[in-house]
Amino acid sequence: MKVPKSHPRYTSLMTREKLVEAWKAGIAIPEGLIAHGRGEAWDYLLGEETSAPALVAEKTAAAYLVRAKHPVISVNGNVAGLAPREVVRLARAIPAKIEVNLFHRTATRARRIATELMKAGATEVLGVRPDARIPHLDSDRALAQRDGIVRSDVVLVPLEDGDRTEALVRMGKVVISIDLNPLSRTSRKATVPIVDELTRALPNIEKFVRELHEDPKETRRLIRTYRKTGNLRAVYSFIGWRLRTLEKKPAGGK
Amino acid sequence: MKVPKSHPRYTSLMTREKLVEAWKAGIAIPEGLIAHGRGEAWDYLLGEETSAPALVAEKTAAAYLVRAKHPVISVNGNVAGLAPREVVRLARAIPAKIEVNLFHRTATRARRIATELMKAGATEVLGVRPDARIPHLDSDRALAQRDGIVRSDVVLVPLEDGDRTEALVRMGKVVISIDLNPLSRTSRKATVPIVDELTRALPNIEKFVRELHEDPKETRRLIRTYRKTGNLRAVYSFIGWRLRTLEKKPAGGK
Repeated sequence: MKVPKSHPRYTSLMTREKLVEAWKAGIAIPEGLIAHGRGEAWDYLLGEETSAPALVAEKTAAAYLVRAKHPVISVNGNVAGLAPREVVRLARAIPAKIEVNLFHRTATRARRIATELMKAGATEVLGVRPDARIPHLDSDRALAQRDGIVRSDVVLVPLEDGDRTEALVRMGKVVISIDLNPLSRTSRKATVPIVDELTRALPNIEKFVRELHEDPKETRRLIRTYRKTGNLRAVYSFIGWRLRTLEKKPAGGK
Repeated sequence: MKVPKSHPRYTSLMTREKLVEAWKAGIAIPEGLIAHGRGEAWDYLLGEETSAPALVAEKTAAAYLVRAKHPVISVNGNVAGLAPREVVRLARAIPAKIEVNLFHRTATRARRIATELMKAGATEVLGVRPDARIPHLDSDRALAQRDGIVRSDVVLVPLEDGDRTEALVRMGKVVISIDLNPLSRTSRKATVPIVDELTRALPNIEKFVRELHEDPKETRRLIRTYRKTGNLRAVYSFIGWRLRTLEKKPAGGK
């Protein structure tokens, strides 16, 4: 599909095409495409821009990642399809490990995703040969790597499922989610829920990581003052306001 | 994926699986899966139930369909994948013609969709060999059948794209849309926008069609009193109220 650059929703449409490509390459799956659509609807409500509360969550996430002993970025099919370079750049800036984690796991897809990340510049990708399990999760969803997510103290889970987010929180980890649905179980359960679009959120976090490396005082302050409930409430208010604004657009007709 | 019947979102998850099956059968396409995801997000906001204003729109739609001289139901890949039986039952109750209409058209997919509808009980399906064009639409999106949509006075377009909805309205047709996004161009441009989920909306319309066949007075009253802008405004208010209710669910965490 050809989309002119002038199209008001150019970025969103290009992202969609990228995901369809990732699906053709065997990296994303149909369920991932549907999940992406859900995100699109939320992002439309958010105005396809990073909101002020999302920016606060991203800065707090950066603070946790900078201070972590064993930070890990978890990557699934949609993340590998949409933002492999952004993931690798952020992992390098922190520095953090990268681990492939799939909800619908096949060995082939895990390998393909690892290859995609290596092509984007990663030097090591965990999760292709899992050797441990996340408790309270059934079947292949639980598979993880001892040296990666299992040992981690801070995990960034972009586009993660609610069950796994909850299981990681129960393991005592600081869980940072990136999820456009502010009402999802993932957003409710994460330690720091970021309600923003993946390819906007990752570079923002990276920028803050670079800043906070040189500012331990601000890093401590962010972690001390962040309040998840208040932050999410600000996101809800923002969406309510957007909805009232969108209603007023001319509708046409009797 | 196995989903227990007790799951609070059982119906939604089963619908999703049905669409993935339709995609595997070459009836739905990746873009359709993403569009479905967008619908899921809106339906979540609507509480996955038919709202009061949607019911009013469905009854008004039935009134227009009952009174029509040449009513047509337009069917695309997602509609054929999710509700072939519901389409055929409604077409028979009115009675209306059925026409395949694809945004991303291939002859093979048009044929497959027609076959799916015949398997669901349709005796005639138009649109496989289009012989006319809808004005103001480019390329294959414009293809239609003279004896079907082109000649129709009332068209039901479930899950339709904004451009085509607008083009049909410009042709002077009464356009009834089924679209979960109340802010979409389709919902804004249709004569009677129904903001409800496909498999809930179609049987509702069918029930009203059967009732109104015997009640021409009520049919006239519905068409006379329906106000699109007021109806959509009621949908917006309902979603705003739902959003405030959802916010109050316990979030957990500091």
